[in-house]
Amino acid sequence: MTAFLLAGAQFDPVFGEPESNRATTEDWIRRAARAGARLVVLPEACVSGYVFDDRAEALRYAEEVPDGPSVTLWSALCRELDLYVVAGIVERRGEQVFNAAVLVGPEGWLGTFHKAHLWNDEKELFDPNTEGFPVVETELGRIGIGICYDAWFPETFRTAALAGADLLALPANWVPVPGQPETVPTMAAMLCMTGAHSNHFYVAGISRTGIERGQPFIGRSLIVGPDGWPLAGPVSGESEELLLAEVDLVGTREQRWGNPFNQPVLDRRPDLYRSDPAQKPAD
Amino acid sequence: MTAFLLAGAQFDPVFGEPESNRATTEDWIRRAARAGARLVVLPEACVSGYVFDDRAEALRYAEEVPDGPSVTLWSALCRELDLYVVAGIVERRGEQVFNAAVLVGPEGWLGTFHKAHLWNDEKELFDPNTEGFPVVETELGRIGIGICYDAWFPETFRTAALAGADLLALPANWVPVPGQPETVPTMAAMLCMTGAHSNHFYVAGISRTGIERGQPFIGRSLIVGPDGWPLAGPVSGESEELLLAEVDLVGTREQRWGNPFNQPVLDRRPDLYRSDPAQKPAD
Repeated sequence: MTAFLLAGAQFDPVFGEPESNRATTEDWIRRAARAGARLVVLPEACVSGYVFDDRAEALRYAEEVPDGPSVTLWSALCRELDLYVVAGIVERRGEQVFNAAVLVGPEGWLGTFHKAHLWNDEKELFDPNTEGFPVVETELGRIGIGICYDAWFPETFRTAALAGADLLALPANWVPVPGQPETVPTMAAMLCMTGAHSNHFYVAGISRTGIERGQPFIGRSLIVGPDGWPLAGPVSGESEELLLAEVDLVGTREQRWGNPFNQPVLDRRPDLYRSDPAQKPAD
Repeated sequence: MTAFLLAGAQFDPVFGEPESNRATTEDWIRRAARAGARLVVLPEACVSGYVFDDRAEALRYAEEVPDGPSVTLWSALCRELDLYVVAGIVERRGEQVFNAAVLVGPEGWLGTFHKAHLWNDEKELFDPNTEGFPVVETELGRIGIGICYDAWFPETFRTAALAGADLLALPANWVPVPGQPETVPTMAAMLCMTGAHSNHFYVAGISRTGIERGQPFIGRSLIVGPDGWPLAGPVSGESEELLLAEVDLVGTREQRWGNPFNQPVLDRRPDLYRSDPAQKPAD
């Protein structure tokens, strides 16, 4: 039996209240464990809050990984409850500060991802990713990580898939996208769905709700199966929600990689692709 | 004034009736011209039909480019009506046969694209693309081309965008995808929408309807703006349709490449990406 219950906790962290937010993550992890979950994905920057005034403020709320209080707490919970957590965290490393996500399991800290695509003024707040897209082998399967705006880049999904990921866990703080019609899923949801479909793997895009320092967040978290269709969500944009979906990362590998209908990883033509650094085209 | 009307003709070619199908393309092109269109996109393999028994049959229905009857007709129409056509065609080149699409304008044949990702048993029918993704400069803007299953590969959109395309024209014969829920757009539509959004360019995915030798096609054509939202369609899956949308390939360049909200071409991190030939992961 390789199937298990994957959970996502969509909630509303409070800026400047790390102790209280940390306790909130414990509540959600325990709630997911009671529901039977073996892996819990939490939103981006879910302990510190997200809308920093400047780099100095981001550094002030940043924590060390794995020795800071959040990873210490999550490690203890994973050990006690025999589960895994992927959570967004602002990481301090010397004088560097990263918009990061960690993977923690019963054996403790397992890996860190630094947001690869820094959105908007994040470029002034955070240091850039220089370590790529780690994929960590666990008893549940191989877990890759992205954060929020990373989903806007199909290279995120593809790079993780080519590194063997069965799942991309995507802590997010999705914001409204201009022009979103009422009649179609959010762009973030469609990016997760097409990312899953074009890589035949699972995607868990877990976002937050609420408004922080004037910035609204849209929730709408979802867990997507390897065919690209949602297994849970997209949930409400307003309320805190626990998403639950049965997934099978290891047991579906053969079927996912042997799909007779289409095979958008194996059918790739990398000899024909360009991946130049982008240049603004001359008019 | 660089804005113009882009048309897509969703119709139902009849297998084995190339003369009649060719006349049908003329009808649609004239109808689009009467509506004021300057560029008309037609479906994949829209003169020959698509469901070939074997390679020999595909070769029998294939035409030379640009000297065969279809490109000759489309060139004459483009000259007479002062417009451009992108159309799917089965191309014969010596003993080679390609699932191709051509770009034709008032000045005649301008370019050919060979489907880069061959779907299902197409690998036994058609020769592989060895020429990549051409992007052709026209007075309307820079036009890139993909065909149907190419949309399943985000590298198609990205490669065209990095080569300067303002529009990806995508003749298609979309088929039902297993598990499609009623409540979300088709996977094909979402791939076009996320492809447009993640590259800040236009996408015209123009599909066919009907059933050919037992294979149903889903229609659902759409024209997508550079923000990722549909400008026309997705239309019905049942009926023939003329899609029309005002687009501005050249005039929106500055805005598309200077979007303050997100910039998923310029914000790329190619130094972090993998593009290995895919390998089925060991269990």
